[in-house]
Amino acid sequence: MSEVEALLRPELRGRTAYGAPQLDVAVQLNTNESSYAVPPEVVEAIVGELREGLSGLNRYPDREFTDLRKALVGYLEDRSGVSLRPEQVWAGNGSNEVLSHVVQAFGGPGRTALGFTPAYSMHPIINETLGTTWVDGQRDAGTFDLTLESAVEQAKGADPHLVFLCSPNNPTGTALPFDVIEAMLEAAPRAIVVVDEAYAEFARPGTPTALSLLERHPRLIVTRTMSKAFALAGGRLGYLAADPEIIDALRLVRLPYHLSVQTQTIARVSLEHADRLLESVDAIKAQRDRLVTELTAMGLAPVPSDANFVLFGGLADAPTTWQALLEDGVLVRDVGIPHHLRVTAGTPEETGRFLEAMARLVPTHASTKETP
Amino acid sequence: MSEVEALLRPELRGRTAYGAPQLDVAVQLNTNESSYAVPPEVVEAIVGELREGLSGLNRYPDREFTDLRKALVGYLEDRSGVSLRPEQVWAGNGSNEVLSHVVQAFGGPGRTALGFTPAYSMHPIINETLGTTWVDGQRDAGTFDLTLESAVEQAKGADPHLVFLCSPNNPTGTALPFDVIEAMLEAAPRAIVVVDEAYAEFARPGTPTALSLLERHPRLIVTRTMSKAFALAGGRLGYLAADPEIIDALRLVRLPYHLSVQTQTIARVSLEHADRLLESVDAIKAQRDRLVTELTAMGLAPVPSDANFVLFGGLADAPTTWQALLEDGVLVRDVGIPHHLRVTAGTPEETGRFLEAMARLVPTHASTKETP
Repeated sequence: MSEVEALLRPELRGRTAYGAPQLDVAVQLNTNESSYAVPPEVVEAIVGELREGLSGLNRYPDREFTDLRKALVGYLEDRSGVSLRPEQVWAGNGSNEVLSHVVQAFGGPGRTALGFTPAYSMHPIINETLGTTWVDGQRDAGTFDLTLESAVEQAKGADPHLVFLCSPNNPTGTALPFDVIEAMLEAAPRAIVVVDEAYAEFARPGTPTALSLLERHPRLIVTRTMSKAFALAGGRLGYLAADPEIIDALRLVRLPYHLSVQTQTIARVSLEHADRLLESVDAIKAQRDRLVTELTAMGLAPVPSDANFVLFGGLADAPTTWQALLEDGVLVRDVGIPHHLRVTAGTPEETGRFLEAMARLVPTHASTKETP
Repeated sequence: MSEVEALLRPELRGRTAYGAPQLDVAVQLNTNESSYAVPPEVVEAIVGELREGLSGLNRYPDREFTDLRKALVGYLEDRSGVSLRPEQVWAGNGSNEVLSHVVQAFGGPGRTALGFTPAYSMHPIINETLGTTWVDGQRDAGTFDLTLESAVEQAKGADPHLVFLCSPNNPTGTALPFDVIEAMLEAAPRAIVVVDEAYAEFARPGTPTALSLLERHPRLIVTRTMSKAFALAGGRLGYLAADPEIIDALRLVRLPYHLSVQTQTIARVSLEHADRLLESVDAIKAQRDRLVTELTAMGLAPVPSDANFVLFGGLADAPTTWQALLEDGVLVRDVGIPHHLRVTAGTPEETGRFLEAMARLVPTHASTKETP
């Protein structure tokens, strides 16, 4: 062990840094990015405002990102019909940062967080890095569903300080029945319940948002991101909505001036152009549904999806298929679930490239047995 | 206690969020920002590159900010003559974020950090928020100097896991003698020693940088920021240099994709224009020296400064003077040291406005006794 390694916190020793491989591949369908570039007119609108604002970079940014919060509230009201006040909204450099604020305020050493695997893999990483004990709850092994009975039983068993739910869930794609969220708030009476809605804009018609539950539940937090539907993964803007008292708590652990002038500007202008930016959402949903249909026709087992990706089972050996797809110029994600891979819905061309590659692979790569 | 407050981590209850008042005052000399706007030609260069890059915001940023690291290494070599490799450099959204990465990797619960008060107030806040036990070491009460003997004795007493030094020190302004840094590395044999050089570019001629010690000391970290000399407080780019093994450790605790495309671009282009951006440094140093001279002439007691601000003593009651200056349209900082205020060196006009206001106040506000 080197001198530096000996000084590292013991629980970090031997770990590797989180992150999907950043490979230079023609068809990148591995990190649930939007395949659609930011449209030129939105780029010009952003550039116009930045040109005004950049000369003032010598001054610290508005620590409270007041204008951005107003814009976020306006967007949520427009799209979900839920009326919030700016003091119910918080933002950070990606939803990972707002999640880490939540964990620093309400989790940490001596406290317990419950999630239901497989789900967003950063939830346990953020909790464990900040010293929270992570309880790896389970979903139905076959369907990946989380039933109300199972969720309640696991919550009562763990008596957690934090609960993490994903709706739609990543990497499985399905939204959560509404009653599960309310049942969790009851079954975990001392817990802050986080519903991660990173993929909410892609949900199938009629899927409700947990935003509408905020009024009744002061312990509920709903997180969102501009990385997916807004095509702003590189812009790093995640946010959440909650009771104003929760926002006050997050302010105690945030680093001052955590959101730069340029990030506040880009996010705010993009929200003003929400209609244009979200035009690609329908196209992406069509490709997602195409993935489900065509993978099913190949004899594979896709999971029903409310997101911009599809998890599919039925592979004899997922890492072998992942490698074969990569050699064919298509990068997808091996999320560590045996016999499964996750693929992002891309443009029609990209999605086609993936489906053609899979069609070539299926004769040798599909499992001859039923998916477990 | 409300339902939410009862769920907060107990050590956070009753705290208030860190941050200087953001008031709309004509002369803002309270947060050590540069008073010089980013020059139009640099704004245009940034806008030009952003226009190219923003359409690609749909993709995640380079998680390793490779080009930015090369640019930082180039800048440090140009200005300090110290040759580093890109794998020795790390960056974040402000130096607060890189400091929090250091604390997450090497501090935290069960570990101890030592600093020497008065110093940068975020050092204890970041450590305590992340569960590190903070040991509030002391400087000489009269001069605010940290002598080698005192530093060594306090380090041996605390046996810390982390040591925080500031050079030049904030809020007192003076750089640290070089031998203190090396003595600390010896006196605290299991500690990562952080030298915060946020104000290094303003140091008086002949002041060495701790960067030159990195080659010999794998436990040394030198932090810097683009907020001050580069006039980029609103751009949020802090960085550090250290042994590559330390950088590897920070990668274990950083949130993936923590640096947005726009922040990487703005910082990189600004570094390409370092000569132009740093032109204001000499003007600011001249105003700083003017502050020391004129405050001394008023019978006040400024501390010698290597930074872009001056701490001055000799006030009967610092909060009263702070308020009187504010009413006169000048915002300075009450850093909590009795009989002292801190003022940033602004433009000649701003600095003049402050000095005129002080000259009016001195007859009634100066202490009749010696500064303690």
